[in-house]
Amino acid sequence: MQTNYEAFPRTAANYVPLSPISFLNRAEALHGARTAVIYGDQQRSWSETAARIRSVAAGLMARGIEKGDTVSVLCPNIPELFELHFALPLTGAVINTLNTRLEPETIAYILDHADTKLVIVDRELIPLLSKAFGLMQRQIPVIEIHDPNAEVTHPLGGDDYESLLEAGALKGPGLPADEWDAIALNYTSGTSGRPKGVVYHHRGAYLMALGTVAAWQQPHYPVYLSVVPMFHCNGWGHPWVMAMLGGTMVFTRTPAPAKIIEAIRTHGVTHFGAAPIVLQMLAEAQTDDFQPFDPVVRVLTAGAPPPPAVLEKARAIGLEVMQVYGLTETYGHISKCLWQDSWGDLDASQQAELQSQQGIALPMVEAVSVFEAGTGEIVPQDGETQGEIGIRGNTVMKGYYKDPEATAKAFENGWFWSGDAAVVQPSGYMQIRDRLKDVIISGGENISSVEIESALYRHPSVQAAAVVAMPHEKWGETPCAFIELREGAEATEEAIIAFCRDHLAGFKAPKAVVFQELPKTSTGKIQKFQLREIAKTMSR
Amino acid sequence: MQTNYEAFPRTAANYVPLSPISFLNRAEALHGARTAVIYGDQQRSWSETAARIRSVAAGLMARGIEKGDTVSVLCPNIPELFELHFALPLTGAVINTLNTRLEPETIAYILDHADTKLVIVDRELIPLLSKAFGLMQRQIPVIEIHDPNAEVTHPLGGDDYESLLEAGALKGPGLPADEWDAIALNYTSGTSGRPKGVVYHHRGAYLMALGTVAAWQQPHYPVYLSVVPMFHCNGWGHPWVMAMLGGTMVFTRTPAPAKIIEAIRTHGVTHFGAAPIVLQMLAEAQTDDFQPFDPVVRVLTAGAPPPPAVLEKARAIGLEVMQVYGLTETYGHISKCLWQDSWGDLDASQQAELQSQQGIALPMVEAVSVFEAGTGEIVPQDGETQGEIGIRGNTVMKGYYKDPEATAKAFENGWFWSGDAAVVQPSGYMQIRDRLKDVIISGGENISSVEIESALYRHPSVQAAAVVAMPHEKWGETPCAFIELREGAEATEEAIIAFCRDHLAGFKAPKAVVFQELPKTSTGKIQKFQLREIAKTMSR
Repeated sequence: MQTNYEAFPRTAANYVPLSPISFLNRAEALHGARTAVIYGDQQRSWSETAARIRSVAAGLMARGIEKGDTVSVLCPNIPELFELHFALPLTGAVINTLNTRLEPETIAYILDHADTKLVIVDRELIPLLSKAFGLMQRQIPVIEIHDPNAEVTHPLGGDDYESLLEAGALKGPGLPADEWDAIALNYTSGTSGRPKGVVYHHRGAYLMALGTVAAWQQPHYPVYLSVVPMFHCNGWGHPWVMAMLGGTMVFTRTPAPAKIIEAIRTHGVTHFGAAPIVLQMLAEAQTDDFQPFDPVVRVLTAGAPPPPAVLEKARAIGLEVMQVYGLTETYGHISKCLWQDSWGDLDASQQAELQSQQGIALPMVEAVSVFEAGTGEIVPQDGETQGEIGIRGNTVMKGYYKDPEATAKAFENGWFWSGDAAVVQPSGYMQIRDRLKDVIISGGENISSVEIESALYRHPSVQAAAVVAMPHEKWGETPCAFIELREGAEATEEAIIAFCRDHLAGFKAPKAVVFQELPKTSTGKIQKFQLREIAKTMSR
Repeated sequence: MQTNYEAFPRTAANYVPLSPISFLNRAEALHGARTAVIYGDQQRSWSETAARIRSVAAGLMARGIEKGDTVSVLCPNIPELFELHFALPLTGAVINTLNTRLEPETIAYILDHADTKLVIVDRELIPLLSKAFGLMQRQIPVIEIHDPNAEVTHPLGGDDYESLLEAGALKGPGLPADEWDAIALNYTSGTSGRPKGVVYHHRGAYLMALGTVAAWQQPHYPVYLSVVPMFHCNGWGHPWVMAMLGGTMVFTRTPAPAKIIEAIRTHGVTHFGAAPIVLQMLAEAQTDDFQPFDPVVRVLTAGAPPPPAVLEKARAIGLEVMQVYGLTETYGHISKCLWQDSWGDLDASQQAELQSQQGIALPMVEAVSVFEAGTGEIVPQDGETQGEIGIRGNTVMKGYYKDPEATAKAFENGWFWSGDAAVVQPSGYMQIRDRLKDVIISGGENISSVEIESALYRHPSVQAAAVVAMPHEKWGETPCAFIELREGAEATEEAIIAFCRDHLAGFKAPKAVVFQELPKTSTGKIQKFQLREIAKTMSR
């Protein structure tokens, strides 16, 4: 039925596509004189940063970058990567941040799959990129960032990043025509095979930022330490949040504990995000005369369920930690373990236990529910019945790049299926119990057991292999390989590990190898749960 | 150019229309056991409240209410009006809250213009509604709210609100099909003639709520005192905010200072919004043994620039006030006077002066700019150059109901034109200097001088009349009428005021009448600025 309410077209006054670009406009207009970026001795205001960003965007457009192009960036957390989080969207292009810890094979795979039109690389990572290029059929233009703090390597002959700034005024697309337009392409760690390209849109990135501020009650002008790699979910959206709030991003290039502590003390850091492993390293880096941070620093942690012991230690050194949970497919965090006043009376270890739960949905998320396999019903809040976490909302990816089948499967029945198994506590708080996929989370990185097994199976002595997680004091988990040798064949633990290092990124190599007959089902499928029981008792 | 990024359809997993209905779903799912509503002895949880809301929605649908229908509500701030802020959107209908202080003529005009299909009325306001009905050609069905705290009046014979609850389960539209669908219709005070019907959409209401939480850093579980009438911009969006945060809404039916103070102390109110006049009344209602609120209560104030003296007094009694600025056309606040640390060293009166500025745009607003008349350029930040405030963003109305001409005029050149004149300070903070229209703001209500003049012109003795604002200690401003009598005619101040009271809502009647020849331009136009100079020196 047509009513009088339908007679309203969208106009420039009352409809603005949701996009983080609006936050840059805001920072420039309202907080221009405030500090946007601190990196060593370098400090730049939002005016200066916005001007640089617009010039970089103009420079990229002058080099032919346009709407819908993929531009890959291989770079640690430094101001240039931050700038590109606005400059690339401003051109209409899609930013594809590459995990700097990947092996050349995977980087080559991603550059190829992503249809990358240009690579922007930090000079220290040129050798890695060169190796990846060596495995590819296609030539891709390169722009090099010559950060004086980075090791000098043999240049690839690409233009200097700073030369982008010479292009003059941006006559660019600016805000996207459609908020559903892609803004970022983030590859998964490929836990169940090849990495998949997760596509984000402007609408989701905007709502992620606004919802995070609402959920974390971030004030204006936070001083945010950039620890979460921006190649993980675009640093959980925080580059965009900082523009909204006129905040300051502090960079240390590498997340070494001493650097983090120094930056917190020197620059008055108020907030950061980090994997539990980083919190643990911080807690362990303390000297005897260490004074807890005062005022306390507010921290989001995610990437793996934080061990309660780590949460306890973090609190002791002056960190107020809130755990959040999410996936690459959900722009990062979609649930949070919101502190409850009633926990105040518990002792520290009980508190830490509760804080290690994954909690409740963030405000911008429509629903996070746990569905029982088989029945498809939402599990009761009994802390026992397991199900798979399903997520629905505007901060769920557009889909997987060039993979409509995987996209359709991920979105079956109108939910995004996380692959994580959880229970719901009587409090309504979700708690992850196990992984449906065989993922090993080591130092905040997801490692696919399948991928390591594939490497092991290439070893001439290996008959059968299964990799499971083994607890590790520092990294949370590390891979432990169980191997059945071929009849008459021989191999040592050292040799197997060395073999893996030749074929995989170093952090993916097993830290322990056990030679034994593998337990199997009657149909010959390896019973990993038995191996997990053994691995639990081990550590290396 | 078609790229691989365009191959992604929206699905139920990754696209949810932005709507405050999502916040109700959230409150029910995550905060069901928490208290949603407190009104006298009545307390209801979010579970109970959500169940009531869904039943009310079902009851309304059973009575034929459907998508695009206008339902008008004439009711003070009580839980039923709060429930209707969710129940009506759930049916797809549009909630039209009526200012309970209006005269029957204007209510009749609105009910007619809004195509109201059903009126829901608090029993105390039945006499007012009856009078409005008496002026109308059209019969409109009625539902009556029999709040035991309301005076008993002669019922109109409509169904009891509680009977809506008997309709059973809601098989309703729920979330809107399109986030651009209308959710509310709020009539302006008609400062420049007839009131205009401002149409809000679900998208704007959602972003208003999320942006307000981000801007005000509201924590989860606030206890919010419902002071701002919900007929003003739907209570500045706070009914929807409370659902998002699992907060508690405390109702007092009327905003008498003693009731507000008691509610704050009894229920631990943490936040509220109120016009400056309410803050002033609170400050003046203090007895000698009054202890300032502890912890401090956080307050948004808007509706008129707050006099610095009021801000000072408010702070002294334990209110932490942030001024915000906005209009009916912008869902309420779109700018805020964010506190700056550098103000900490100033004395209280200087601080209050700064806090009376209108400040900077909220995070969900694309831009608030001040444009110089004539040049159309943005004014320099010199604190002197005046211009008109233009606003652009997703929390700008869809438009005026059934008034495409006024809509087009309001949105000229892609901005919404506020009609307010302002300067921008060197700090970048906006400050309102004057009104472009001749509005008198009395006790938070906008009064149109044109409307009063129209009434005066009906008096047989009046030759010419002009009404301007006169300062008033309690109400901020009151109308002062300047009158030229017809030759030989006579009238007293008392008679003129009484005449106005017969033709206008009481608060619109002039508080002073001056008989004199009116200053006019050569073309016969009355020079109001001269009269304003006289009125400035008066008070009544």
